[in-house]
This record gives sequence, C-alpha cells and structure tokens, in this order.
Amino acid sequence: RPSSQPHRRSAVSDAAAPAPAISPCGACKFLRRKCMSGCVFASHFSSDQGAAKFAAVHKVFGASNVSKLLTHVPVNRRNDAVVTICYEAQARLSDPVYGCVSTILALQHQVGSLQRELSMVQTQLMNTRIAIANALQNGRHQHL
Amino acid sequence: RPSSQPHRRSAVSDAAAPAPAISPCGACKFLRRKCMSGCVFASHFSSDQGAAKFAAVHKVFGASNVSKLLTHVPVNRRNDAVVTICYEAQARLSDPVYGCVSTILALQHQVGSLQRELSMVQTQLMNTRIAIANALQNGRHQHL
Repeated sequence: RPSSQPHRRSAVSDAAAPAPAISPCGACKFLRRKCMSGCVFASHFSSDQGAAKFAAVHKVFGASNVSKLLTHVPVNRRNDAVVTICYEAQARLSDPVYGCVSTILALQHQVGSLQRELSMVQTQLMNTRIAIANALQNGRHQHL
Repeated sequence: RPSSQPHRRSAVSDAAAPAPAISPCGACKFLRRKCMSGCVFASHFSSDQGAAKFAAVHKVFGASNVSKLLTHVPVNRRNDAVVTICYEAQARLSDPVYGCVSTILALQHQVGSLQRELSMVQTQLMNTRIAIANALQNGRHQHL
C-alpha cells in the first residue's frame, strides 16, 4: 500500500480494504514508477493516453529536465508549457534536423512572400488611382 | 596521458614528449569530461565559446538526448541540427512557457494579418478597376 496519496483515487473506499487500484499518470506509467501525490506531470498526462505523449517528451527533453522546468513555471501556466513542450518534442522526432524550427522557417518564408505580394498590389492600386486622377484632370481640361 | 586521440591536437609532436595541452570541446568542457576522438559535439561547440552555448542545450535537452539525436542525423546535416537545437534551448530558457513556439504563434498571427490586409487591398484594386471600366463604358455611351 503506497504511503503517499496518488493523484487519482478510485471511488472504492480504502478504509481497511485492500489498496484501491491506483492509476498512475501517463508519465509515471511510461517511467514505470509510482505516481506520487503532487506529481508535476499528473494533470497533463492522462493515465490512458498520456504515456504515448510523454514518450516523445522523455526522448527529446528527458523527464527530469521537463519536471524541473515545470516546477519553475507558475501552476496556471503549466498547461501551456506542456502543450508547447509536447509540440516541440513531436516536431523534433518527426524532423530530427530542424524540429519545429522548420515551421518557423516556413512561416518566415510565407511572411516574406505575403509582404512582397501586398507591396505589389498596393503599388498597382496606387498607380490605378493616379491614372484615374490624371484622367479626371485631363477630362476637366477638355471641358474648360 | 589520454589513451584516445583528442579531436584537436596541438602542433607539438607527441612522440615521447609530454602530452600536448588538450583543449576539450565546449560541451566536454562544460561536462568536465575528457573530449574523446570522434566526440559528436566537438565540431559544433568550440573550446572557447561553446561551453556557454552548450549549457543551455544541456539544461533543456540533456547532453545524452542530444548526443543520441545527433548520432542519428547524417554528418552533413548535424550542423543544422545543432543550430536549431541551440535556438530551441535558448528560446525555452528565455520563455519557459512557450519557448520558440511563441515565435510560431507570432508568425502565424503576422501571416493572418498580412492575408487580411492583402485581401482588403486586392478588393480595393478590383473595385477601382470595375469603377474605371464602368466610367469608360458610360463615357462611350455619352459619345455615341
């Protein structure tokens, strides 16, 4: 029977009964360790699907590094931190050379391309307006 | 005297002379270990400035994870991998919640903003051209 309270308890009463089936969080399940009370991963890696998600995080960052990082992040920001860490880990496994930096490079390319196109269309619009102004000016002169 | 050849040798001959001053790469300097021949970090973390750069990588990813990752990347792609890993590590230390994902989010926002502006200017250009076409059409009718 574990000395500390797990983060999730089954609904079964534990008074004098055998220890309830403890479901460790996905991270602790992956790490094959007891999921202790206050486990920093527990709220973010579910028991059923969190292990696969944690595997990528563990492979890329290491459980200990992520645990340290999360404990230095305010509790209300940890979910965002976990989401971005999982994203980075998955991206690095998919593309070991560039990781999620490939997305940054692609977006920078897209921004450059859009800026050039915008500038071109703005120039066309300006030229068209100048042409109209000139045409109106000439029309007025013809009527004078 | 080290049993293996360091990745960098001084120009001093080592025949029966005292071991040359070995300058470990920045990663091995940071890890306070001997820089062995074929060290996967040696080409990417210089002895003089690489240690500070490696500190961030070590803190975020861990030396062992990065070493494993690099050995699975073809030699001619490793420099790009190190550059992106260093970038991600620095970004995560600067912004523990979002890391370099903050750059992705900012770029996505910029792309959205540029797309909306482009669409607006394209509409203005189209409307201006339609107005010109209508004006020309009316002008012709007046001359008939």
